[in-house]
Amino acid sequence: MPDKTALVVSAHSADFVWRCGGAIALHAEKGCDVTVVCLSYGERGESAKLWKEGGMTLDRVKTERRKEAEAAARALDVHDIRFFDLGDYPLVMDQDAKFRLVDVIREVMPSFMLTHSTWDPYNPDHMLTLQWTLECRAIAQAWGHNPGQAVLGAPQVYLFEPHQTEQMNWKPDVFLDITPVWDRKWAAIQCMQGQEHLWSFYRNAAENRANHFQRNSGGQSGGRAAKYAEGFQSVFPRTVDEL
Amino acid sequence: MPDKTALVVSAHSADFVWRCGGAIALHAEKGCDVTVVCLSYGERGESAKLWKEGGMTLDRVKTERRKEAEAAARALDVHDIRFFDLGDYPLVMDQDAKFRLVDVIREVMPSFMLTHSTWDPYNPDHMLTLQWTLECRAIAQAWGHNPGQAVLGAPQVYLFEPHQTEQMNWKPDVFLDITPVWDRKWAAIQCMQGQEHLWSFYRNAAENRANHFQRNSGGQSGGRAAKYAEGFQSVFPRTVDEL
Amino acid sequence: MPDKTALVVSAHSADFVWRCGGAIALHAEKGCDVTVVCLSYGERGESAKLWKEGGMTLDRVKTERRKEAEAAARALDVHDIRFFDLGDYPLVMDQDAKFRLVDVIREVMPSFMLTHSTWDPYNPDHMLTLQWTLECRAIAQAWGHNPGQAVLGAPQVYLFEPHQTEQMNWKPDVFLDITPVWDRKWAAIQCMQGQEHLWSFYRNAAENRANHFQRNSGGQSGGRAAKYAEGFQSVFPRTVDEL
Amino acid sequence: MPDKTALVVSAHSADFVWRCGGAIALHAEKGCDVTVVCLSYGERGESAKLWKEGGMTLDRVKTERRKEAEAAARALDVHDIRFFDLGDYPLVMDQDAKFRLVDVIREVMPSFMLTHSTWDPYNPDHMLTLQWTLECRAIAQAWGHNPGQAVLGAPQVYLFEPHQTEQMNWKPDVFLDITPVWDRKWAAIQCMQGQEHLWSFYRNAAENRANHFQRNSGGQSGGRAAKYAEGFQSVFPRTVDEL
Amino acid sequence: MPDKTALVVSAHSADFVWRCGGAIALHAEKGCDVTVVCLSYGERGESAKLWKEGGMTLDRVKTERRKEAEAAARALDVHDIRFFDLGDYPLVMDQDAKFRLVDVIREVMPSFMLTHSTWDPYNPDHMLTLQWTLECRAIAQAWGHNPGQAVLGAPQVYLFEPHQTEQMNWKPDVFLDITPVWDRKWAAIQCMQGQEHLWSFYRNAAENRANHFQRNSGGQSGGRAAKYAEGFQSVFPRTVDEL
Amino acid sequence: MPDKTALVVSAHSADFVWRCGGAIALHAEKGCDVTVVCLSYGERGESAKLWKEGGMTLDRVKTERRKEAEAAARALDVHDIRFFDLGDYPLVMDQDAKFRLVDVIREVMPSFMLTHSTWDPYNPDHMLTLQWTLECRAIAQAWGHNPGQAVLGAPQVYLFEPHQTEQMNWKPDVFLDITPVWDRKWAAIQCMQGQEHLWSFYRNAAENRANHFQRNSGGQSGGRAAKYAEGFQSVFPRTVDEL
Repeated sequence: MPDKTALVVSAHSADFVWRCGGAIALHAEKGCDVTVVCLSYGERGESAKLWKEGGMTLDRVKTERRKEAEAAARALDVHDIRFFDLGDYPLVMDQDAKFRLVDVIREVMPSFMLTHSTWDPYNPDHMLTLQWTLECRAIAQAWGHNPGQAVLGAPQVYLFEPHQTEQMNWKPDVFLDITPVWDRKWAAIQCMQGQEHLWSFYRNAAENRANHFQRNSGGQSGGRAAKYAEGFQSVFPRTVDEL
Repeated sequence: MPDKTALVVSAHSADFVWRCGGAIALHAEKGCDVTVVCLSYGERGESAKLWKEGGMTLDRVKTERRKEAEAAARALDVHDIRFFDLGDYPLVMDQDAKFRLVDVIREVMPSFMLTHSTWDPYNPDHMLTLQWTLECRAIAQAWGHNPGQAVLGAPQVYLFEPHQTEQMNWKPDVFLDITPVWDRKWAAIQCMQGQEHLWSFYRNAAENRANHFQRNSGGQSGGRAAKYAEGFQSVFPRTVDEL
Repeated sequence: MPDKTALVVSAHSADFVWRCGGAIALHAEKGCDVTVVCLSYGERGESAKLWKEGGMTLDRVKTERRKEAEAAARALDVHDIRFFDLGDYPLVMDQDAKFRLVDVIREVMPSFMLTHSTWDPYNPDHMLTLQWTLECRAIAQAWGHNPGQAVLGAPQVYLFEPHQTEQMNWKPDVFLDITPVWDRKWAAIQCMQGQEHLWSFYRNAAENRANHFQRNSGGQSGGRAAKYAEGFQSVFPRTVDEL
Repeated sequence: MPDKTALVVSAHSADFVWRCGGAIALHAEKGCDVTVVCLSYGERGESAKLWKEGGMTLDRVKTERRKEAEAAARALDVHDIRFFDLGDYPLVMDQDAKFRLVDVIREVMPSFMLTHSTWDPYNPDHMLTLQWTLECRAIAQAWGHNPGQAVLGAPQVYLFEPHQTEQMNWKPDVFLDITPVWDRKWAAIQCMQGQEHLWSFYRNAAENRANHFQRNSGGQSGGRAAKYAEGFQSVFPRTVDEL
Repeated sequence: MPDKTALVVSAHSADFVWRCGGAIALHAEKGCDVTVVCLSYGERGESAKLWKEGGMTLDRVKTERRKEAEAAARALDVHDIRFFDLGDYPLVMDQDAKFRLVDVIREVMPSFMLTHSTWDPYNPDHMLTLQWTLECRAIAQAWGHNPGQAVLGAPQVYLFEPHQTEQMNWKPDVFLDITPVWDRKWAAIQCMQGQEHLWSFYRNAAENRANHFQRNSGGQSGGRAAKYAEGFQSVFPRTVDEL
Repeated sequence: MPDKTALVVSAHSADFVWRCGGAIALHAEKGCDVTVVCLSYGERGESAKLWKEGGMTLDRVKTERRKEAEAAARALDVHDIRFFDLGDYPLVMDQDAKFRLVDVIREVMPSFMLTHSTWDPYNPDHMLTLQWTLECRAIAQAWGHNPGQAVLGAPQVYLFEPHQTEQMNWKPDVFLDITPVWDRKWAAIQCMQGQEHLWSFYRNAAENRANHFQRNSGGQSGGRAAKYAEGFQSVFPRTVDEL
């Protein structure tokens, strides 16, 4: 898979770890360069533990969050991680920020993209990220945007698993076996010192998705065992030569 | 693909031609044995042209419809075609008929199945076929059904394209390039002498799905041209080792 | 409208009054023959008040309910009312009953049909009635059903207003002004001695639908006033020569 | 809660354990009598491990499954468990069986009911169980069914958690803290010797639902910790005197 | 209920009256402080009657609308009413206005919130209000927003009844008996001199919701009578200790 | 139809041709003045063929696209075409642009409007156009917007056919026979020199919609033949005096 690349668009700097850390590590291991864009550090809305400590400032929180994200990225063998530092709660993406993301998309030319789900009443940052990602994908396909630059094809966009799947109307249509790289994902998860309350949550989720993997690959009759898996929802239809 | 097999469950004897003739011929060409079960001949509800001729009886209509279906099956290189002759409008599947379909499923052990969509206010036979197919798939997975017999795994079920897609809440998530076998599908379509008004409809549909194929495989930037395609909606999630 | 006919399929003998009494009376007034089929009398499940009286038997309840329905039908100028007496709670429609309904459909050759909504967790009789009506409509279109008989075209099926619209996933796409015949509907409603607790409910509903009528016909700027209206949800697309 | 009663309708004899064992034990502890109806033993379709042993017969499987279910019921302090023995894969509920369930409903007069979700392409037995339960609930409300018998009010119906929630279109709207009775649920789970592969799956699920409980009860600011929880989807609206 | 507080976010200054006036008065009576935020006066889009009078200016309309809203608030015993005066048709909420709403949320620390539904093709102001309210709720939960300030928990958000419920995809899951405070709501409604055409509409709606209240609390068997009710749709799951 | 007017809101300058060229020409022929607003030229995102030529600039592309659109408008007998030149990919409509569209709406006072569908993950410009159109329709109805100006009534908004109907959740509820004006639509299509790959796609679509027209107008029994048709989805309910 040396020619394959992938792009993750993460609203806050920890989202890529919980939600698709396995997919990142697995594809990295296969030789696929995975780039992660963190639109914000989640410094205001997803750093409660840090804020509960004394004497914290926005800059210190951002620094801590960045360190954690970079450590996790190393654990997952991320090719490149970019921090857009757009602020969070609310995360706002103006035209400049959109064009910046388009630049990254065209630079990476991803074979597929990973981002948030379409609806999230708990966290509008997440659902806006999906809207913006679709918008930037469309701009990257436009021949009239930076004419002369190579133009994006039609990469699949996978929506990774949100925190409360059913409340977000998220329905996975593909399960990925991440057993071979679980150690990496678990190491990356443990980099998230500020959100320790979520560690076992996402280990449980990975184990249960492995159960779904086995069920959908044959169940009690030829189903392939997997110990850890991740689920994704595709936005676009696939094009195939064989069912 | 010598070990792959497929099973099509067709409510009426012409459905498999319009809706997945390309998929059948394509997989046959790759060495996959495709079995077709026609639950009825469509003798009452889908043979208007024959009935408009003078002196028709139910038996004559069924004979004609069977001939057409067999000719189409030959054109598509169907491995085996079974006629359950359950009657249509309404199509009724009692427990015996269900067990008969379970027997075929276990005999074929399909790698994937193809059948009708979930909702069809024009034609309840179609939507009941999907219900029954799911039910029979579950029975074929039951270790206590004919104990000792080999048990079905978890084949994907693809819903093929209905006549008015939007009214049937059908949404394709996979497009299959059938260009290499279009001649076969077109030949099979022409076997359906009683429904000539649908020939060009399904040729148009195949051409337009090819446009969708190209759009989703890259569009104006690297999209692969296809002249004919078919669309399918998956019922179950896929299990993969790579996105 | 002398050539127009309509057919109402009512699960229980009072449903046609509350839910489309205005449509019936209005079309009758325009010269359209409206036939009502009551699949049951609602004798078990919708006659609480009668059962609370002493000494009631199933036959007596059915007799009372029939009288009420006939009186209401007269008030609405129903052309013909048929009682299938299939029983209720549960209402069961076997193949014979279905063919009996097909016979009525072909006899009436309705320009449009009216029946219950698709989902009703309170009252499965209602949602099954829609399923059966669609099935019988399809059979009535089949050239091989009673060959030689004239075959049904493609009448619209309107789902009339259920008791708790939002719980039944019912969404009206057409509002009918029934102001000119409200007196008839109100008279018919008052025939339902056993369900007096619903009288004002359906008057309120008619008044509020009139508000929706006005809002959708122009609101504060040219909206046409209506005092009473009914709402319907179409199952099938319309075919028109002008938008 | 001495006057409260509850009724669980379980398609197969183990469903009530995984899906609402906590709710059962919790309400039992509060003095609520919980009755469980197992429509089948799951002897054909959910007993793979038993069938893989040598020399098994349908009767032996049913006996084993019944023993397990009874042991689990004891662990959960179920008030009464009834086995309808209707067969599974497919589970079929004829009119007699429905009336039998109506009898139980009227005997128990449940304050609330628990059963399966509305859609399950993996397992039609499950979704039919919901249909039948709604139908029987309606019959139990009918004054004309066994006139003179006390008539059912309008108990809530909760859909318990299916195996793959997103594939079944199941969306929980209530989370129940089952921490105080987790030991009982875990003991009941361990009675299911034939399905050991599901033990940790449902422990993980309970832990993760506890995370959702805490998130929805206040999250990082006053959210109440829970170690184990279960989720349910309500079919009907609630009626309250205070929001 | 002395510790309970509630917050209503009303797009235009009359919305809180029609849609949740009963809930406000009822909770006020129980000792709950209810604060209302009116994002605009509805001066451009919901004051047709005033504009039809001669010599009207935007300021005069706003003054009139404010007077009506204040009078209604008094009738309902609203604890506090704030006018954000953001303009309407279109209503636009910039970052400052959002932070202003966040301030109110943190000041009130509502036990629950009430606002508009998710979809409204007639009135985008309404659906944007829900989006903004969810966004502001999330910001109010962020520890990094005004660090040191007390942080919001996870109050339920109830969507109150829109004008055409089915067109707005609104589905109530809770009915509140407002009979004890109907007089207050009716008085508040009559403060809305500019929209007299809606008075009887919302009285009818309250009466019919009372019918739904009774139906869902037991119907013909133990259903509790209510004369007036309001319906609400919950955005988030509930967390409970008992079903 | 001399008093009827219609307004088309087209995100890019070619959309009105493919998606509702038949409706435009047909209504023009009946004496209805049809105005088209092109929010952008589609100069960046829908002009790949032009950009692939050497030496292109944004201005040249816009000029070419405008010429094509004007030629197509002439072929369809469009009454008036306005170019807002707002830019595309992304198309952004600020408050000034919205008020400009409101001005056009009030000037035209359309009997009905035509625009894009609600969801389009391929092309956010399209779905935002629908949002803005609904917003501007509401503003045009506001008595306080430019007081003294005549106020808009409640014109239907029809969503025209997107490129991949099922992916956009678009479901037509009305089919319009455009056979009498097909020559005009075909001529207009051929004006789109830059998108020749779509010509046959939309001819096929028109032919297949004609098949749907016939099916829904009676099918094999009295269905009216049509050679070309267009489909539309209504946003609002209709108000009628007859079903």
